[in-house]
Amino acid sequence: MATLADIGVSAFINILTAFAFLLAFALLRIQPINDRVYFPKWYITGERTSPRSTRNFVSKFVNLNFRTYLTFLNWMPQAMRMNEAEIISHAGLDSAAFLRIYTLGLKIFVPVTIVALLILIPVNVSSGTLFFLRRELVVSDIDKLSISNVPPESIRFFVHIALEYLFTIWICFLLYKEYDSVASMRLQFLASQRRRVEQFTVVVRNIPHISGHSVSDTVDHFFQTNHPNHYIGHQAVYNANKFAKLVRKRDRLQNWLDYYQLKFERSSDKRPTVKTGFLGLSGRKVDAIEYYKQLIKDFDKKMTVERQKIIKDPKSILPVAFLSFNSRWGAAVCAQTQQSKNPTLWLTNWAPEPRDIYWRNLAIPFFSLTIRKFIISMSVFALVFFYMIPIAFVQSLANLEGLERVAPFLRPVIELKFIKSFLQGFLPGLALKIFLYILPTVLMIMSKIEGHIAMSTLERRAAAKYYYFMLVNVFLGSIVTGTAFEQLHAFLHQSPTQIPRTIGVSIPMKATFFMTYIMVDGWAGIAGEILRLKPLIIFHLKNMFLVKTERDREKAMNPGSVDFPETIPSLQLYFLLGIVYAVVTPVLLPFILVFFALAYLVYRHQIINVYNQQYESAAAFWPHVHSRIIASLLISQLLLLGLLSTKKAAKSTPLLVVLPVLTLVFHKYCKNRFEPAFRKYPLEEAMAKDILEKTTEPGLNIKAYLADAYLHPIFQSFEVEEEEVVQVRVDKHQTHHVATPPLSELSSPSPQHVNQSSPPHYNDYPPSLPQDYYYRPASPPHYGYNYQLEP
Amino acid sequence: MATLADIGVSAFINILTAFAFLLAFALLRIQPINDRVYFPKWYITGERTSPRSTRNFVSKFVNLNFRTYLTFLNWMPQAMRMNEAEIISHAGLDSAAFLRIYTLGLKIFVPVTIVALLILIPVNVSSGTLFFLRRELVVSDIDKLSISNVPPESIRFFVHIALEYLFTIWICFLLYKEYDSVASMRLQFLASQRRRVEQFTVVVRNIPHISGHSVSDTVDHFFQTNHPNHYIGHQAVYNANKFAKLVRKRDRLQNWLDYYQLKFERSSDKRPTVKTGFLGLSGRKVDAIEYYKQLIKDFDKKMTVERQKIIKDPKSILPVAFLSFNSRWGAAVCAQTQQSKNPTLWLTNWAPEPRDIYWRNLAIPFFSLTIRKFIISMSVFALVFFYMIPIAFVQSLANLEGLERVAPFLRPVIELKFIKSFLQGFLPGLALKIFLYILPTVLMIMSKIEGHIAMSTLERRAAAKYYYFMLVNVFLGSIVTGTAFEQLHAFLHQSPTQIPRTIGVSIPMKATFFMTYIMVDGWAGIAGEILRLKPLIIFHLKNMFLVKTERDREKAMNPGSVDFPETIPSLQLYFLLGIVYAVVTPVLLPFILVFFALAYLVYRHQIINVYNQQYESAAAFWPHVHSRIIASLLISQLLLLGLLSTKKAAKSTPLLVVLPVLTLVFHKYCKNRFEPAFRKYPLEEAMAKDILEKTTEPGLNIKAYLADAYLHPIFQSFEVEEEEVVQVRVDKHQTHHVATPPLSELSSPSPQHVNQSSPPHYNDYPPSLPQDYYYRPASPPHYGYNYQLEP
Repeated sequence: MATLADIGVSAFINILTAFAFLLAFALLRIQPINDRVYFPKWYITGERTSPRSTRNFVSKFVNLNFRTYLTFLNWMPQAMRMNEAEIISHAGLDSAAFLRIYTLGLKIFVPVTIVALLILIPVNVSSGTLFFLRRELVVSDIDKLSISNVPPESIRFFVHIALEYLFTIWICFLLYKEYDSVASMRLQFLASQRRRVEQFTVVVRNIPHISGHSVSDTVDHFFQTNHPNHYIGHQAVYNANKFAKLVRKRDRLQNWLDYYQLKFERSSDKRPTVKTGFLGLSGRKVDAIEYYKQLIKDFDKKMTVERQKIIKDPKSILPVAFLSFNSRWGAAVCAQTQQSKNPTLWLTNWAPEPRDIYWRNLAIPFFSLTIRKFIISMSVFALVFFYMIPIAFVQSLANLEGLERVAPFLRPVIELKFIKSFLQGFLPGLALKIFLYILPTVLMIMSKIEGHIAMSTLERRAAAKYYYFMLVNVFLGSIVTGTAFEQLHAFLHQSPTQIPRTIGVSIPMKATFFMTYIMVDGWAGIAGEILRLKPLIIFHLKNMFLVKTERDREKAMNPGSVDFPETIPSLQLYFLLGIVYAVVTPVLLPFILVFFALAYLVYRHQIINVYNQQYESAAAFWPHVHSRIIASLLISQLLLLGLLSTKKAAKSTPLLVVLPVLTLVFHKYCKNRFEPAFRKYPLEEAMAKDILEKTTEPGLNIKAYLADAYLHPIFQSFEVEEEEVVQVRVDKHQTHHVATPPLSELSSPSPQHVNQSSPPHYNDYPPSLPQDYYYRPASPPHYGYNYQLEP
Repeated sequence: MATLADIGVSAFINILTAFAFLLAFALLRIQPINDRVYFPKWYITGERTSPRSTRNFVSKFVNLNFRTYLTFLNWMPQAMRMNEAEIISHAGLDSAAFLRIYTLGLKIFVPVTIVALLILIPVNVSSGTLFFLRRELVVSDIDKLSISNVPPESIRFFVHIALEYLFTIWICFLLYKEYDSVASMRLQFLASQRRRVEQFTVVVRNIPHISGHSVSDTVDHFFQTNHPNHYIGHQAVYNANKFAKLVRKRDRLQNWLDYYQLKFERSSDKRPTVKTGFLGLSGRKVDAIEYYKQLIKDFDKKMTVERQKIIKDPKSILPVAFLSFNSRWGAAVCAQTQQSKNPTLWLTNWAPEPRDIYWRNLAIPFFSLTIRKFIISMSVFALVFFYMIPIAFVQSLANLEGLERVAPFLRPVIELKFIKSFLQGFLPGLALKIFLYILPTVLMIMSKIEGHIAMSTLERRAAAKYYYFMLVNVFLGSIVTGTAFEQLHAFLHQSPTQIPRTIGVSIPMKATFFMTYIMVDGWAGIAGEILRLKPLIIFHLKNMFLVKTERDREKAMNPGSVDFPETIPSLQLYFLLGIVYAVVTPVLLPFILVFFALAYLVYRHQIINVYNQQYESAAAFWPHVHSRIIASLLISQLLLLGLLSTKKAAKSTPLLVVLPVLTLVFHKYCKNRFEPAFRKYPLEEAMAKDILEKTTEPGLNIKAYLADAYLHPIFQSFEVEEEEVVQVRVDKHQTHHVATPPLSELSSPSPQHVNQSSPPHYNDYPPSLPQDYYYRPASPPHYGYNYQLEP
């Protein structure tokens, strides 16, 4: 067990690391060459085009203004300058709500820390069992400050119980207030939105196949019958995975064309040439621009044929459609009611905003969804509890003997001493590292298999899975020795009352471990986040080798976004640690406080200057945050119960049994009170906006407005602008359409231009909210919401 | 442990009892004097008015036709004569679906019994551990036929596992088919209904109080804004508990008046007199008819004042209202959507049919509902697990020493030997008996406190509570010795894997107990049900002493109805026993088969001839039946797992772990597939009926049709027929209104008359469905449904 001195050393090292990161950040961020790495958000909003272009050549890359070096920590007050309303309009409600988690952490833990330290440390220290009786044992200094120092059957435990009550009440009070204000922020945010396509659109899945009728006819007939005054049309969904591949290829060709055109413009003396053979290394030399123009032309023909094939083949129409309604009220009604006698058919739900749709999952039939959900929940269970098994297997393969057996020819190399020692130290850890690195991706893939149709839902589901993994493997796994699988086995063979005891009794002993964990993962890790070392290196590498055009540089900028699936579960782990240790080992609390404060500043800075949100769910993740803090409360209460029962403070049991029950009642009440605001769209709201719109814009043609909103990419050119060549682009995370011919203009983006080239139906934003664009200029802004799709 | 001979004796006694009951029933039912006890349903439907009135005086009471005594079991084929469609039209869908539970039992257990007996008995007997090795031990003969006879580690256990798989698949298959057909029966039933008020009505609870506006204004404003094309009005709900008491008193006076008027008509020589003093024994002698007429007149004035007071006092208007819509579609939309931004306000749901409403619970606010639900679930938990504690306490008081201490003057009496032995044998059991007798009432009161607003929901909730009680105290309580509380304590301190072992290992040993239980409770109990001893005695007693008028005789008839809260949980216990013992001790199965067959016949007879259903929920209880049979399957699988693990058949564990998981997946799928049909009302359906109605009855005034449908009883006379004296009657289970002046006519009810006196809006029934009246002639028929109100 670590002594206070050990903790001090660890703290020193980690504070040093964190400061090194912060210093490096402060120095790097003021270099003009890094401007696009540390301030991409401002490039995207169009408030910056290039860093200080008026200077000389050197100062284009290096900051020679030495005064700015003196104030290298001034990003902190800068980060605090924006208020919440400004953040909402600058980066969306999701980001603002995300920051509220950190302020909630501060609000919870500042008073808790003060009270716990002032009251519990004297109580624990003066009890002094460990101090006087067991001087000879190896007992951590930290333990003297913890509940372990109180002798069994002491009356002092009632102080701990009273504080547990006090903290629970305080946390519940803050949670209630916070849920309330986030819910009203959400409602206000949604109410302040102007017209948006998803307000009028409902997605219907599992359209039944009626022989002799096309899907479109079936949909029209059904909804014209059952929503006669509200339904105005629908947009079919095509199975276009093959076509999407073609689009990506054409995109690449277009990029080469841009590159050569730009090259030709710059040095207009000679036309660029290219070899037609393998990788452009062999074959005939031809004029590059002409060559690529011809290639694209051929490609367009091929795509037209393929597109026609898809559209004409009725089998490529999926049993899914986006329904358009003439009022928000009509859409709200259709999304919230059951349509058909057979409850597995005609499943209606709110449509996610167009960018947010994960097109591939639209085709999954109902029966398969149940099976998929079941298989994935089994897999998550296996992943959480048995994840060590495949790793151990790979590790056993990846040791030296295994390697020699598989590849005997490597033996002479491996037998070299320094290589051997390197491999022995390196290989076993590698499998685990790789696994942990790919874990979020694996969880995301699992969520995709589950069949959710919106990216935002996918991210929330992945976050939930990650939370379970952290809870079992980081929290429980650190407290109870052995792998999660061994724990599971032990727990299955213990009585339910024994489990909290087993865990509870180990909790005070692990406080030092978690302090180190918080310093490494929380302090240094967060300081590393602001440094953005990986994007920095990748940006400069790309800039040197890959960037051919201005569009490529835009792409290389890669601002990223708040990584909800990873960040929120980690954050919830800190809440758990703080709440569990608040009465057990209060000296852990200041470490958590420092984490929350530092992380708040860092993420505030990143959200203002760096991240560019991918979608707007209007804080749809808040119910999860709330319920997981409640779960942390319950865990802390159960563990304290277990811990005290080993301390023979049995008289206190009834007091502590009541607490989780009350906490659950509170949770239930909050769920009933606030959760519908995050899942449903009230008719009152819909009607109010409909009426307002009718009075302000009486002549609005809603059908035209919705016409191409949810068109599948491939359908775009045919229905909207017949025969006009249109650029269609399908990215992994988003789908959007740009009207022709934007390419040459796009190379120098400016906000004014963006306004003109974006589709007309996105032009009606409230003047109070600045427009907020994705990094591709013509993409729609992010003020969306997402009601449904939660299991 | 019982031997085969013991079981034989028990079977003989119980079969004898059952036969005695059946014989008594056969003899009593053909006596004209009992006609109203055994065929009340026919009196209610109007197909019988009085038993064979053409005979002489003696044969009015005793059946002298000796030929009918020879065919005393002919009620059985009679009971089978009606087909399902006829039963639905005769007694409603609830009754038909109730009978389907018994046929489901037969369909499940006939093949299971045959397969289990043919395969398992030889396998078990030939294993012969108990037969040869433990001849000296006290081992039941039954055990030789059970799984106990198979030696540990035997490969024969795979036969049991295979059969468990087979039975699970068979039961799931039948459950799926049955759920499917009940769901489609329900939809067909609802589709075939003609216009009903509840199709157009939505109940809204938690109307917010807006200062300066009345509840009515608030409601009108809100729904005129948010459902402008569909909302046509609402009916307020008044807090009228005091008034209801007055109504009951006036009812009693009216009854006396009828009695004296009838008496005067029969013997018109002298007018009946009555004394005005205490209980009519003292005081002045007055003319009875005049006296009661005066009393009623005074009472009416008092009631008018009280009524005015309630209506004028805005505080007596509850924040609840019944909303009327001009189409089924509009009502369906309002019932299924969220109305307000604050999800705790404006809670809309389907209105139950008017008879089904439990008026008192309409006023409970939202916050209180959460608390109530929590308190009641705690209480049910306590009741189930700690119910022995108060009983033991009462028992300790109720022994002889306690009695002598409380009442020393009784000592000489108690000390008498025969009284002493009687009391000692009688008193301790009395407390338990009383408790078990009042248990259903207690559970019903608990459900009422929970705040459900429909009688049908109340009954379903009470049934659920009764099921838990039976499961823990009858099933587990019989298997594991000790009180439920001791079991709970033991289970909390055992590992989760140990519990199925502890229970599983005792299961084969308790087979003989359950056989006896089935014979006593199932065979003899069911035979007792058809005898209707209690209603028979009460009817004759009432007939002799209380019946004053024909209306009183109608009342005394008391046909009762299927007692869902008690019958369905007991039935589910038989499913549980059958499924658990199918592979463990298959000789128990024939006993269950006999129960299902006998009970099917008896309930078919009772439903056709006796019961008169109180409401029609259109088989809303089926999802509970389904899910509890699934629960039985899970319990049987877990217990078999535990049993086999004590038999050291560990290799089989993975096989048996898979089964519950698959069963759960099946359950989840069924839930998604069928349950919405029982909870929601699809728009397709609503629209189809709206359209049909519009074409067939284009001039329908729906507002007039709905005007008084959900009027609170006290409001009736004021809004519908201003200043007209109207008879208002509030019973415990129903509320209905009869137009004036029905009393003299009502004394000789005939079906033709009933048709005329029933309110006009109930006259539009489909001609194919015979009209089905409650025992009060003017009450509305029962083809209703009930979608909502399930927690």
